Amino acid sequence: MPVTVECVPNFSEGRRKEVVDRIVFSIRSVPGVKVLDVEMDPDHNRSVVTFVGNKENVQEGAFRGARAARELIDLNKHKGQHPRMGALDVLPFVPITGVTLTECIEIANKVGARIAKELKIPVYMYEAAAKKPDRKNLENVRRGEFEGLREAILKDESRFPDYGPRMVHPTAGATAVGARMPLIAFNVNLKSKDLAVAKDIAKKVRASSGGMPNVKALGFSLENRSMVQVSMNLTDYTVTPVSKVFEAIQKEAEARGVEIAEGEIIGLIPLDAVCDVAARFLKINSFGSNQVLERRIWG
Amino acid sequence: MPVTVECVPNFSEGRRKEVVDRIVFSIRSVPGVKVLDVEMDPDHNRSVVTFVGNKENVQEGAFRGARAARELIDLNKHKGQHPRMGALDVLPFVPITGVTLTECIEIANKVGARIAKELKIPVYMYEAAAKKPDRKNLENVRRGEFEGLREAILKDESRFPDYGPRMVHPTAGATAVGARMPLIAFNVNLKSKDLAVAKDIAKKVRASSGGMPNVKALGFSLENRSMVQVSMNLTDYTVTPVSKVFEAIQKEAEARGVEIAEGEIIGLIPLDAVCDVAARFLKINSFGSNQVLERRIWG
Repeated sequence: MPVTVECVPNFSEGRRKEVVDRIVFSIRSVPGVKVLDVEMDPDHNRSVVTFVGNKENVQEGAFRGARAARELIDLNKHKGQHPRMGALDVLPFVPITGVTLTECIEIANKVGARIAKELKIPVYMYEAAAKKPDRKNLENVRRGEFEGLREAILKDESRFPDYGPRMVHPTAGATAVGARMPLIAFNVNLKSKDLAVAKDIAKKVRASSGGMPNVKALGFSLENRSMVQVSMNLTDYTVTPVSKVFEAIQKEAEARGVEIAEGEIIGLIPLDAVCDVAARFLKINSFGSNQVLERRIWG
Repeated sequence: MPVTVECVPNFSEGRRKEVVDRIVFSIRSVPGVKVLDVEMDPDHNRSVVTFVGNKENVQEGAFRGARAARELIDLNKHKGQHPRMGALDVLPFVPITGVTLTECIEIANKVGARIAKELKIPVYMYEAAAKKPDRKNLENVRRGEFEGLREAILKDESRFPDYGPRMVHPTAGATAVGARMPLIAFNVNLKSKDLAVAKDIAKKVRASSGGMPNVKALGFSLENRSMVQVSMNLTDYTVTPVSKVFEAIQKEAEARGVEIAEGEIIGLIPLDAVCDVAARFLKINSFGSNQVLERRIWG
């Protein structure tokens, strides 16, 4: 099983395909790096690239992406719905296989320091890689965006970067570099039209109102389907597994006389998280992804 | 996601390591083929090699293994506890990823025909690749072993091979070539000391006594742990998924007032089978292994 670090840089360009292509090409130019996905959003004028590599080449890929963005994107000319402060706006590293979150924090620091030094771009460490508590939350780091930060960084000590110059780069702005666990987007749809039920259950399970750690949850109405939904982001499945979240919602729904219609996994989910759910169902005490046939084959 | 066919040849040599090494080397010599496991059993005087490849190179690997076994193993000198009729005794092909059982049957036929033609070894097609109903069961094909088949093949029409000469090879015997789905070894342990409960539930769920298709089940006593066990082989998880088997046993156990202690997966399990269990638990209608992050990375 190869060591795999995922990197998900967000670039402030979602309209000019030739620019995004050149940035992606620069990432792909690193041997061993594999680009999994590129999503351009013209309304946000922003692109999200997902690539993977090992502990070394993922750093080189990220740096080359940062360098290409600095050459090709001028934030003074950038408009879009999504808040942004840099040509390469955010750069999170995510542990997938054979690597820990702690190691991803180290990787983020190495790349952040290099971007600051070689590209003269101020770098803010965020999420698990934050060096100051208020920088765990990206919104705090990006407050005021490119235009606001350009002023604030000069005089407001709380806005001084973790690496690099105390001034934004004139065209490439500033970059937030971080580390986080893989995110699982998980929804549970309920056989009820009562939005209050979904909102109430969401409040019960989410971390911010005293529920389970690493769970973000909101209640929504699915008008077309005459159902309501508890929509969640699970930000660390090793702390709060999907099975535990599902069981908690099931219990809360039952207590309200409401049935679960279905669960939904949106996008991708790590193999270990799937194995955990299967093990819970089958009451298996020791079942790991190393028992998955394909993992042996690909390893 | 690369196309992956698994091949699990059984060779009639489990004592002379240098012989097994040379056979494995000949399989490994095919570019793109990957040997996952080699198990030598001195009592059975037999080795089981597990390797994978794509639709083409898996055939070449299997043929080279057959050729090496023909050169290195003399059945006239072979003794062991396990029944056998060939130097390469059995050669099953198993669909893992991006390939169907039907395609594995085609592969088995191509390799079988080539072994017969180029190595002058009679070949019997078995399991899903059987051309005659009674050859689905390997025991029927191997009846009398090398020594018995040597006589029977000459005069008994029911023992004529599917490919190759109507006489066993003087030193390499005959080979059974087949195709089957991946096997899942799944046990459920029950909080009871009553062996009759386990035997009774095994009978309820297994195919041979009118239970679920592709389920083989026996009841055992786990003396050391004061429990009983329903021990199963699931021979096609796409027909009878693990989750369905577990739920059936749960129902039968409940009806007898017995609790399930735990489940056990012995050895490896295909990714799709794990995803199915997870989807069942989370009540997800459409969850496939293509949503597993690592599958995207390795693909």
